[in-house]
Amino acid sequence: MKLLAIDTSNQPLSVAVAEDNKLLAEVTTCVTKNHSVTLMPTIKEVLKAAQLEIKDIDRVVVAQGPGSYTGLRIGVTTAKTLAFTIQKELVGVSSLAILANAYPQTDALLVPLFDARRENVFAAVYKWQKDELQVILEEQHLSIQELCQKLAKRRERIIFIGIDSNKFSKIFQVELTMKKYSIAPEQFAYPSGFVLTQLGRQMKPVQISDFVPRYLRLTQAETQWLQNNPEGKKYDESYVKKI
Amino acid sequence: MKLLAIDTSNQPLSVAVAEDNKLLAEVTTCVTKNHSVTLMPTIKEVLKAAQLEIKDIDRVVVAQGPGSYTGLRIGVTTAKTLAFTIQKELVGVSSLAILANAYPQTDALLVPLFDARRENVFAAVYKWQKDELQVILEEQHLSIQELCQKLAKRRERIIFIGIDSNKFSKIFQVELTMKKYSIAPEQFAYPSGFVLTQLGRQMKPVQISDFVPRYLRLTQAETQWLQNNPEGKKYDESYVKKI
Repeated sequence: MKLLAIDTSNQPLSVAVAEDNKLLAEVTTCVTKNHSVTLMPTIKEVLKAAQLEIKDIDRVVVAQGPGSYTGLRIGVTTAKTLAFTIQKELVGVSSLAILANAYPQTDALLVPLFDARRENVFAAVYKWQKDELQVILEEQHLSIQELCQKLAKRRERIIFIGIDSNKFSKIFQVELTMKKYSIAPEQFAYPSGFVLTQLGRQMKPVQISDFVPRYLRLTQAETQWLQNNPEGKKYDESYVKKI
Repeated sequence: MKLLAIDTSNQPLSVAVAEDNKLLAEVTTCVTKNHSVTLMPTIKEVLKAAQLEIKDIDRVVVAQGPGSYTGLRIGVTTAKTLAFTIQKELVGVSSLAILANAYPQTDALLVPLFDARRENVFAAVYKWQKDELQVILEEQHLSIQELCQKLAKRRERIIFIGIDSNKFSKIFQVELTMKKYSIAPEQFAYPSGFVLTQLGRQMKPVQISDFVPRYLRLTQAETQWLQNNPEGKKYDESYVKKI
């Protein structure tokens, strides 16, 4: 199976093409976040390097979130459009699971996280059990202090993963005084499109038309609108005024 | 410090640009081995993605071998030419060390290897001790059986790394019956240009003009020539006829 993977959920961008468990080509960048400009040319380059055309792809795999609103929309919209156009399968994978699954088996808890501003993070907790990575704490939007409090209760050593982990090192020092923890080496901080193809291979394809990003929180505009329009909640989370 | 890293020592090709410990852009491909055609355009793409020009690079880092003769010549020649042209530093790193250093701390022995044909391999053995990866067995050209015999004497669990590891799984079964061993997950099988930048950051620059690949064995033509011209050995390993 030939897979194309796209992750634009945060500042890094990663695109890869794999055939089954073999990497054909992968590009990962982490410069300014202009995914709307760079994603399509990168996909073109990666396909060319893999000596394939888009119609050769059997399955498109995309990082579904959490992450930046704009980044997720770009990745998910591009992946949906490509899969729909070439009439092939689409799979969505948690952006946090991509980071955790890149790390090999260990006894430690793996805690990928993304900065969600104002000392909040998107995070999840995973643990290798036998040969499978199990979810210990579902991906969620929470304060960094709350995350640390949950982790402080566990016995295992902790490995934080992601380019934003270093930002919180002072908070870790305060909140995790009694815990053994470390930040994963730099090469694990960036999502790998190749790892994404490998996760996407094992999952069930989704209904393309119904597929949406997993934001895990409302935008500020949405929160404010709901404060002003409490009755809006009953409209199935849709607050577009019916006319 | 801005670093450009190049690895064409085997079938995969990896090129990366980093600023200190931050990845800016990385491309890794593993298709047909036509590094002579693809390397320069890939360097151009990676620099463009990193929003840099070649003159912005402070240090060129190259995988120095072991590996394919042709692959090494292409990588090393390109790296030397670039470093010389922009008058910047050059550093060479073991191609096997790149694979081992991509793997995070573990109690196991790390054994990166490349197929050298006829049941021979280029291999080395590393072990994480405290926070440093130590060389347990220097990189060398040896038979896969000999490597297994050396490993069988060790107490530690073994992790083989590299895209060629799976080729030898039957030999491992026979030679390592009493040992716990595994093959590293696929994402560790390919060299990472980014890891190469991180290794090259810490090393001392070389004299560009004197820098040569580490082949670790003679070519078949060289071996045959030495058999027919045993006096050739005294010419400092150079068998070019003086005219």
